[in-house]
Amino acid sequence: MGKLFVVGIGPGKHDLITKRGLDAILSSDLICGYNKYIDLIDSLIGNKPTFSNGMKGEIERVKFALNKAKSGKTVSLVCGGDSSLYALASLVFELCEDFENIEIIPGITAALSVSARLGAPICEDLVILSLSDLLTPFEIIKKRVDAINIGDFVTAIYNPKSKKRDKYLKVVLESFYQQRGNLICGIVKNCERDNEIVKITKITDFDYDIVDMSTVVIVGNTKTYLKNGKMITPRGYLRKYGS
Amino acid sequence: MGKLFVVGIGPGKHDLITKRGLDAILSSDLICGYNKYIDLIDSLIGNKPTFSNGMKGEIERVKFALNKAKSGKTVSLVCGGDSSLYALASLVFELCEDFENIEIIPGITAALSVSARLGAPICEDLVILSLSDLLTPFEIIKKRVDAINIGDFVTAIYNPKSKKRDKYLKVVLESFYQQRGNLICGIVKNCERDNEIVKITKITDFDYDIVDMSTVVIVGNTKTYLKNGKMITPRGYLRKYGS
Ligand SMILES: C[S@@+](CC[C@H](N)C(=O)[O-])C[C@H]1O[C@@H](n2cnc3c(N)ncnc32)[C@H](O)[C@@H]1O
Ligand SMILES: C[S@@+](CC[C@H](N)C(=O)[O-])C[C@H]1O[C@@H](n2cnc3c(N)ncnc32)[C@H](O)[C@@H]1O
Repeated sequence: MGKLFVVGIGPGKHDLITKRGLDAILSSDLICGYNKYIDLIDSLIGNKPTFSNGMKGEIERVKFALNKAKSGKTVSLVCGGDSSLYALASLVFELCEDFENIEIIPGITAALSVSARLGAPICEDLVILSLSDLLTPFEIIKKRVDAINIGDFVTAIYNPKSKKRDKYLKVVLESFYQQRGNLICGIVKNCERDNEIVKITKITDFDYDIVDMSTVVIVGNTKTYLKNGKMITPRGYLRKYGS
Repeated sequence: MGKLFVVGIGPGKHDLITKRGLDAILSSDLICGYNKYIDLIDSLIGNKPTFSNGMKGEIERVKFALNKAKSGKTVSLVCGGDSSLYALASLVFELCEDFENIEIIPGITAALSVSARLGAPICEDLVILSLSDLLTPFEIIKKRVDAINIGDFVTAIYNPKSKKRDKYLKVVLESFYQQRGNLICGIVKNCERDNEIVKITKITDFDYDIVDMSTVVIVGNTKTYLKNGKMITPRGYLRKYGS
């Protein structure tokens, strides 16, 4: 058997890939991934053969990568952001019996690159939530939204909207508003990619139209505040130790 | 004014630092950080001057870094893992008025590097929770534990134990057990550092003694399972699309 790297390539710009991830890609005979992620690293891949397909092609993509690795090739299966979170590492383990030559290489997940662009909204206890109902029924998502209100967590929302699914985000933000008031929201679209948009607003002024599939919305907790255009969740050092 | 980089250096090994983070460190006149993090990157820093101090020295450390940047120096304030999550980015914004020359550089957070060592326990909706009551009272932590049970989230527990605080983890896992059964737990100590320990167990067999301040515990949700020694949370592709 060859080797299968499952590589998180970070949000987009190449200087946010780790050296371990880059070395895996450069040492591979074949690069597999979702179309858009392959495009993002096009200039790193050079002439290496690639296998790419679209959404809902995940099982085929992983099987292809596993088969090539079984036949002796070194293969990188690339994922945007981190390689596990809403990504393919777990499907690799599900579709394979021998884990000896599989290596998971983590990447900078969207929540953290988005947080850095907004200021520092992610600073303490956090929920990462996807609004895609493709794999999780909306009843479970709603339960999780209730839980977030109870815990007053900062929340990073992935997959906030798609063409078929444009009302969930509104439902979620309205629940946050009713339970916790007019929280601060940060919106980052195309984070660390071309045409990046960064916007900070409140729930009542939320601009639903700029949100798309390449966007993360971070909603603060009740302590999150705005200062000089940045979104900040205090960790509590100043409250505890004074300034 | 000079420049202040707040740099997430990842869990430990240098090949998990991003190029952007490394470039910031190499271009700096001065490196500030918690003692242990400065030690981790010692060989990268060379002869550069450093300012390091211990826990509870956060405010002094950040002020020192800000002052040096104000006086014209290029400064890197380094944080383990990510630079915002339970880290110093937000304190920097709190202690400063002019954000023009501050740049937050995200890093691989412990939850994701730990997940990669365990298999793929982090795959869908997630809570990151700290058990340190230094800055968050235990009443709030308990509320969040209740919320986690309601939402059946995978949970990454940071700061699971310190010398003064060794019972919280037991209280939390017992609550998980009562509400959700005997969930699978992954323990990684010194992840991507010397003396790394990786262990997968169930709540009833949990080994509290190996847990310390340099450990993350990932507790699965009710769908997480064990396969060939790896901890896997399915994303649901197979349930939805078959194999
Ligand atoms: C299938 S998930 C993949 C997440 C990825 N594995 C990660 O860790 O970031 C896709 C969702 O991630 C978010 N996302 C990923 N990269 C992004 C970026 N560069 N800018 C904004 N959102 C991004 C969006 O919410 C998108 O709908
Ligand atoms: C003050 S928090 C800093 C978190 C850091 N900013 C991050 O994003 O990973 C310290 C806690 O992070 C966890 N941690 C950080 N690095 C770790 C590593 N290499 N191995 C295990 N746990 C780690 C431990 O739970 C530790 O108590």
